[in-house]
Amino acid sequence: MQGCALWASEVLPQIRIIGVKGLPEIEPGDDLTTLIIAAAEEQGTPIDDDDVIVVTQKIVSKAEGRLVALGTVQPSSQAQQIASETGKDPRLVQVILGESQRIVRQTSGVLITQTRQGFVCANAGIDASNIGGQDHVSLLPEDPDASAATICKGIEERLGKRVAVVISDTFGRPWRLGHTNVAVGVAGMLAFVDYVGETDPQGYELKVSIMAVTDELAGAAELVMGKLSRIPVAIVRGFPYPKGEGKAQDLVRPPEQDLFR
Amino acid sequence: MQGCALWASEVLPQIRIIGVKGLPEIEPGDDLTTLIIAAAEEQGTPIDDDDVIVVTQKIVSKAEGRLVALGTVQPSSQAQQIASETGKDPRLVQVILGESQRIVRQTSGVLITQTRQGFVCANAGIDASNIGGQDHVSLLPEDPDASAATICKGIEERLGKRVAVVISDTFGRPWRLGHTNVAVGVAGMLAFVDYVGETDPQGYELKVSIMAVTDELAGAAELVMGKLSRIPVAIVRGFPYPKGEGKAQDLVRPPEQDLFR
Repeated sequence: MQGCALWASEVLPQIRIIGVKGLPEIEPGDDLTTLIIAAAEEQGTPIDDDDVIVVTQKIVSKAEGRLVALGTVQPSSQAQQIASETGKDPRLVQVILGESQRIVRQTSGVLITQTRQGFVCANAGIDASNIGGQDHVSLLPEDPDASAATICKGIEERLGKRVAVVISDTFGRPWRLGHTNVAVGVAGMLAFVDYVGETDPQGYELKVSIMAVTDELAGAAELVMGKLSRIPVAIVRGFPYPKGEGKAQDLVRPPEQDLFR
Repeated sequence: MQGCALWASEVLPQIRIIGVKGLPEIEPGDDLTTLIIAAAEEQGTPIDDDDVIVVTQKIVSKAEGRLVALGTVQPSSQAQQIASETGKDPRLVQVILGESQRIVRQTSGVLITQTRQGFVCANAGIDASNIGGQDHVSLLPEDPDASAATICKGIEERLGKRVAVVISDTFGRPWRLGHTNVAVGVAGMLAFVDYVGETDPQGYELKVSIMAVTDELAGAAELVMGKLSRIPVAIVRGFPYPKGEGKAQDLVRPPEQDLFR
């Protein structure tokens, strides 16, 4: 069984979520790990063993240079067609298609695709806001699990601290209004805690209780990030996360289990 | 604009999530508010102004007597038909149908409906595990927003503390494996923080950034609850939540915006 009972019975279960402020405007080529370590140190909350470091996709994409200038994009006839149906910029649609394996739904103002990484979200996770130049868009990292692993490994190498890393992004949901942050990259921990086959305190077997704790960590971290505060990183401290070689890819539901294709 | 910029720029954004242990096994008719206040006090973390109290649906349903003994249920022919198609207990299917406004998807082992409250989830949110009697199932509270309001008001009356309350339940997601906790009842705060029309630090207008912070609070609280630890309540402390008369009903996407019916 993965994860096992997380909280020892004698301790008070308590988690702290600490926003990391003071990171500079991120530029392509920046070494995020160094900047995150320094900012956490600077504000008096240095990274420690067993922390979960949650990093927003946006700064990861910027550091990795995953930016496209829309002015350089030549929309295909398919992109132009979809743009006219959705009311979106044909160049943006072209970029979305390039990052997608399939279109899931489209309607006026909405283009939901499954990204090359397998995530189902609006606009293939491509974001026009918050980037230093209005005709630029930022794509998801090429391989967000690898991005998470790089930061995780970098923190261990430089600080000697073993942490988990979650890269978060903001997704909508089909039947619930509003957005939540979820995990698009994971390193240093399992994606889930799996209670299947365990029994509850009354002795009954628990049925379906595979908890996507990495998504819950991403959402929890968003509460200290906000959208305007320039807090792109949070430290979640005190959560006895399931250690192991998990990845956000594990969260992608396989097509044969997808009832909403 | 709802919610506005949540964190003052001079403070370190920091949230604590504290599990509340020591609640007794809940029975129909129990006064949850009194039990939660006492348990939080007992462990040295009394409820304070501006806390968000997250309570799992299960103990709310039990306190409200929302239990059905399957032995008393007479399945209809429709329930028997669906039971044979899904492999579920016909009596359970009957109870699910009674709690649902429509079936969203069904297949072997899976029955996803939209509940009377509007939530899309497996088995209408009905739960067989963790209840003191294997042939009993627990339904969602009749009106989880009202349940949340009762606890919220009770805390103010008895302690003089103004808090927000979120009732949480465990839902699956169509394209992501694993479950997360989301809000099914809300009181004392808005369901969302709405950044639409705000500008980011670079001066660009943010597009779609309506964050379902109540869902993120429910998920964050799950991290200290686990499934086995008998921690059905958590206190989220330090989150400058958007005050107001929100409800979980606000989270339900209207049919005309639902692309996955």
